Amino acid sequence: MELKVGVIGTGAIGKEHITRLTNKLSGAKVVAVTDVNEGSAKEAAALCGARVEKSDKDVINASDVDAVIVTSWGPAHAASVLAAIEAGKPVFCEKPLATTAADCKKIVDAEIARGKKLVQVGYMRRYDKGYLQLKEILDSGKVGAPLMIHCTHRNPSVDASYITSMAVSDTAVHEIDVLHWLTGEQYKSAQVLFPKSTSLTHSKLKDPQIMILTTESGIVINLEVFVNCQFGYDIQCEVVCEKASIKMPDPLFPSIKMDAEYSTAIETSWKRRFIDAYDVELQDWINAAKAGGAAGPTAWDGYLVGLGSDALVKAQETGKVEPVNAGPCPSFYR
Amino acid sequence: MELKVGVIGTGAIGKEHITRLTNKLSGAKVVAVTDVNEGSAKEAAALCGARVEKSDKDVINASDVDAVIVTSWGPAHAASVLAAIEAGKPVFCEKPLATTAADCKKIVDAEIARGKKLVQVGYMRRYDKGYLQLKEILDSGKVGAPLMIHCTHRNPSVDASYITSMAVSDTAVHEIDVLHWLTGEQYKSAQVLFPKSTSLTHSKLKDPQIMILTTESGIVINLEVFVNCQFGYDIQCEVVCEKASIKMPDPLFPSIKMDAEYSTAIETSWKRRFIDAYDVELQDWINAAKAGGAAGPTAWDGYLVGLGSDALVKAQETGKVEPVNAGPCPSFYR
Amino acid sequence: MELKVGVIGTGAIGKEHITRLTNKLSGAKVVAVTDVNEGSAKEAAALCGARVEKSDKDVINASDVDAVIVTSWGPAHAASVLAAIEAGKPVFCEKPLATTAADCKKIVDAEIARGKKLVQVGYMRRYDKGYLQLKEILDSGKVGAPLMIHCTHRNPSVDASYITSMAVSDTAVHEIDVLHWLTGEQYKSAQVLFPKSTSLTHSKLKDPQIMILTTESGIVINLEVFVNCQFGYDIQCEVVCEKASIKMPDPLFPSIKMDAEYSTAIETSWKRRFIDAYDVELQDWINAAKAGGAAGPTAWDGYLVGLGSDALVKAQETGKVEPVNAGPCPSFYR
Amino acid sequence: MELKVGVIGTGAIGKEHITRLTNKLSGAKVVAVTDVNEGSAKEAAALCGARVEKSDKDVINASDVDAVIVTSWGPAHAASVLAAIEAGKPVFCEKPLATTAADCKKIVDAEIARGKKLVQVGYMRRYDKGYLQLKEILDSGKVGAPLMIHCTHRNPSVDASYITSMAVSDTAVHEIDVLHWLTGEQYKSAQVLFPKSTSLTHSKLKDPQIMILTTESGIVINLEVFVNCQFGYDIQCEVVCEKASIKMPDPLFPSIKMDAEYSTAIETSWKRRFIDAYDVELQDWINAAKAGGAAGPTAWDGYLVGLGSDALVKAQETGKVEPVNAGPCPSFYR
Repeated sequence: MELKVGVIGTGAIGKEHITRLTNKLSGAKVVAVTDVNEGSAKEAAALCGARVEKSDKDVINASDVDAVIVTSWGPAHAASVLAAIEAGKPVFCEKPLATTAADCKKIVDAEIARGKKLVQVGYMRRYDKGYLQLKEILDSGKVGAPLMIHCTHRNPSVDASYITSMAVSDTAVHEIDVLHWLTGEQYKSAQVLFPKSTSLTHSKLKDPQIMILTTESGIVINLEVFVNCQFGYDIQCEVVCEKASIKMPDPLFPSIKMDAEYSTAIETSWKRRFIDAYDVELQDWINAAKAGGAAGPTAWDGYLVGLGSDALVKAQETGKVEPVNAGPCPSFYR
Repeated sequence: MELKVGVIGTGAIGKEHITRLTNKLSGAKVVAVTDVNEGSAKEAAALCGARVEKSDKDVINASDVDAVIVTSWGPAHAASVLAAIEAGKPVFCEKPLATTAADCKKIVDAEIARGKKLVQVGYMRRYDKGYLQLKEILDSGKVGAPLMIHCTHRNPSVDASYITSMAVSDTAVHEIDVLHWLTGEQYKSAQVLFPKSTSLTHSKLKDPQIMILTTESGIVINLEVFVNCQFGYDIQCEVVCEKASIKMPDPLFPSIKMDAEYSTAIETSWKRRFIDAYDVELQDWINAAKAGGAAGPTAWDGYLVGLGSDALVKAQETGKVEPVNAGPCPSFYR
Repeated sequence: MELKVGVIGTGAIGKEHITRLTNKLSGAKVVAVTDVNEGSAKEAAALCGARVEKSDKDVINASDVDAVIVTSWGPAHAASVLAAIEAGKPVFCEKPLATTAADCKKIVDAEIARGKKLVQVGYMRRYDKGYLQLKEILDSGKVGAPLMIHCTHRNPSVDASYITSMAVSDTAVHEIDVLHWLTGEQYKSAQVLFPKSTSLTHSKLKDPQIMILTTESGIVINLEVFVNCQFGYDIQCEVVCEKASIKMPDPLFPSIKMDAEYSTAIETSWKRRFIDAYDVELQDWINAAKAGGAAGPTAWDGYLVGLGSDALVKAQETGKVEPVNAGPCPSFYR
Repeated sequence: MELKVGVIGTGAIGKEHITRLTNKLSGAKVVAVTDVNEGSAKEAAALCGARVEKSDKDVINASDVDAVIVTSWGPAHAASVLAAIEAGKPVFCEKPLATTAADCKKIVDAEIARGKKLVQVGYMRRYDKGYLQLKEILDSGKVGAPLMIHCTHRNPSVDASYITSMAVSDTAVHEIDVLHWLTGEQYKSAQVLFPKSTSLTHSKLKDPQIMILTTESGIVINLEVFVNCQFGYDIQCEVVCEKASIKMPDPLFPSIKMDAEYSTAIETSWKRRFIDAYDVELQDWINAAKAGGAAGPTAWDGYLVGLGSDALVKAQETGKVEPVNAGPCPSFYR
């Protein structure tokens, strides 16, 4: 029995997920799509033999739609997700869950009121093999408690539309989610340092930045965001524990001895870097949605990312250590 | 439109492929299974909602079976594959294609007579990311012609049923296929050296062995087979070219600093090592079989592995350099 | 013609330097030694056939002593160094140059007044091959300007006499010197973060600590000091530049595949880690002292380390960003 | 008390050793030199304040010469070494000990007749840190018995004067000596395989070559010699044992992330690769010669290298497995 899926938003990531469900993953079928751009919706429908609907509500409420994927632009997420909750249908929402922490909180409240976990947020790094391996070792207990985490999030380059605050909202959000999951802790404070900027950035972007987050138990996270590093898409994560330091592996490439250098390639595409994680993530969602629920990052997790991001953006502006205060995790999400 | 598949042989690997088709890959559905052990066939049928047939011929000739997977024991392969060719149905045959080079040749001849490529042999290493990356670099031309290949095929340990000749038939066959594919060349000669045996082997197994194969253009392949190496399932492949040496990457594991050692795990399971390759391989076959044909290793490739294996086994016995002579590749397979 | 050397202070490091000059390096000979502990002085004299003198002044002013090595305890350094400057003799002073920045400044002033560089301070990391290689690459210009430096200074463990402030005075001092040399810049500010302490420390030591230094041009240095890390003496240094990131190599050890792990040893002894650097450092000093002068870290460098240390210790106490202000480097030292 | 040394042969390597003894090592002083080229001898003498003698005999028999270094060209080695033995003076002879196994044997016999070990042969790899680390691990017993050794000896390029047989006499000799020392075993057989030659070689040089040596206990050594590999001076050594595989470390270079590559430099100069080993080797010889004897590789070791080389050169010509038969090691050398 296949899960019949409606897709809201058929831009690049929407079309990719449609292709993934249609040609690669098992157990789901896209039956309806919609987009503010009707031409885009028609193209997407052609990829999978689905029909085009007029609006997100039409998709959500269609009687043959079992579950919904929200891949519209960020500001439209909250309304679609709330409608799906109201309809009692499982919904996969690409990041961010909503563009303000307040809207995230509304979704959390609505889901708790509905009494069932229906929302999965698209933070796919939790499905990446490397992070899963780190977590397995941390959870084994043999390395002691984590004390510090050193990370880098580096991109070869960004264009002129990418400004200072986006180092948080477009980039650091991934670490904010995955390190919360990795440590099992909520954040307490946020700080941002601005080293000398690279000459290869533009006037509206301070680049690189060093973001410092602390968690409830006192773990210090040190995140270098450097989006014009030139040399690659370089995601590093080292967790320093009481008895050991563990480091996530780099992607697989052959090593070459040539021209007096011993080298391996560095990934340059964020999409290729995490492509396997996207597959695992959506298969996990299909399996959970078939059972009427959700897996992976919850609405509460989406809310925490919102709060953490807000604090980092504020810290960028004030130059100070800013508090993060989510309150305790509701028992519904534990 | 889903490919309806019949499975002949429902032992361990048969059940795994059934599960793969049912829960993981896209576009195929198992409708009929058979096995000499009826209980095993019933278990397999329950995994995927298929029916049990009495014989391989019943599976092959069933009107709702579009394509066939042969995962019975080796000596039964040739008959089922020949029957599938006769029925004009795409057939995926787990390695070996047949247990003698003569039977492989019969299949080659039958397929050429039928006039259509229907047979895919289950040498999955060609679908492994590491080998694909090596091939891409070799084919780029930037490293010059390959001159030597240094390989290891190491297993932690084997049991008492594994004897000297199986270092070829169970182990080296994988390299025989994948290095033929990697170099695009057929083999000319085979030699086997026996170093001092490890004290951790038994009387019927000389372990380790060093197998030396040469190709048409003179590439020398140096393959260490060591199946009681204790430390892991360790597959290495370094291709030394005129301008560079390229080495396949090791599987991804975190690196850990602990107890005065900086370490990464070594894979210990051959199944986990190539699990992604199995998925890609079967998805490729599904896609090709839907179009009525086959992909990946051909019956001719299966025949070449048979000839190479025979020469290595003979070289184990004679201690000499033994010739391998396949004759030119038929145009049908080029 | 050999350099005739007097050694002041014959504890562990003093005896090592005596042995080094006597059995390993070229061109120097120890002729006189002194120590507050006369027994120790006699032992040291026996190692090299030297005579024992009563006091540091007797050593410095002996007519057959060409140059002086000061390896007494820290609080005694300044007086001996000042006496050597007064006598116009080259002097190698083990770190620290003096225990207060004020005393360091006195030495700087005395040396400038004397009009000749006579003082070399024992910061040996500048002679370590790894740091030299980093500097060569940075100076080549091909990697762009340095923007950030990520370092670790980890020890397996320390005893109960090691307290929080010593993370600066005994440990971070090495990075304070070598990173000043590596970047060619003086420091502007210092900050210290205290992550959750390891359970393997004691009540008077917060461990680990993250020290943040900024330089004149805005380079941000991120130094993890973790002196009970358990797993080794682990010195890391990664310099992130505009176009590349460069990382110092780890010490050489064989790689071993065993027990499902691929591992290399981690150094556990700080002495072995930098033993080659000590040799190169002292040979460089011998060569310079023969010519009547000094090489390597100057008295001004020693003063800068003093100022940087003071700022970090203050930052440990205040929790704030503390300024460092050395003023411009005197032309005498440029 | 300094060792007074006479140097016979003042070409490149002779001058280097003179400089090493004069400016870097401890305890020796060159007092007399000679060379067939008087101008070269004068230059060398100027480097160290020595006098020029007319002949090797004049150097050897000079009353103020305690010990002799032979760095003349190969064919002259045997006569000088025999004269030094006759004079009862310690002699360090650069490789080869002699150009024929017969002459090596003469030296062995003369030394045994003299009753004292006076000869040290300049195979410096035994003093390289990497090989020493391998030996320490092998000797620890924790990895089991060695079964196979995979080596590479690669040079960036050679000129037209380097012909096929020199792959043995100039190149493989280093491995022949160091692997004998590493395993503690003598050789039993030699074989050479010729892969397709690189297009970057010339007509008188087959390049690469694969040399296979076996030892008394059956260890199989697999040595790739590739002297036009283009990419570097690349010395690899992996020893596969019953329970582990151990691999020699590569030289230290920083790792750089740049231009989508993660790379470290490869050494390109054989001289730099082993420069530390030369220092340790000669210091060891100085210390031994001061005591009237020798250290490191003996005349017997030099003879074994001669026999191994002869067998490999013969194997190059015959294409067969050639025996090596040294007979038992004389008790004098055990």
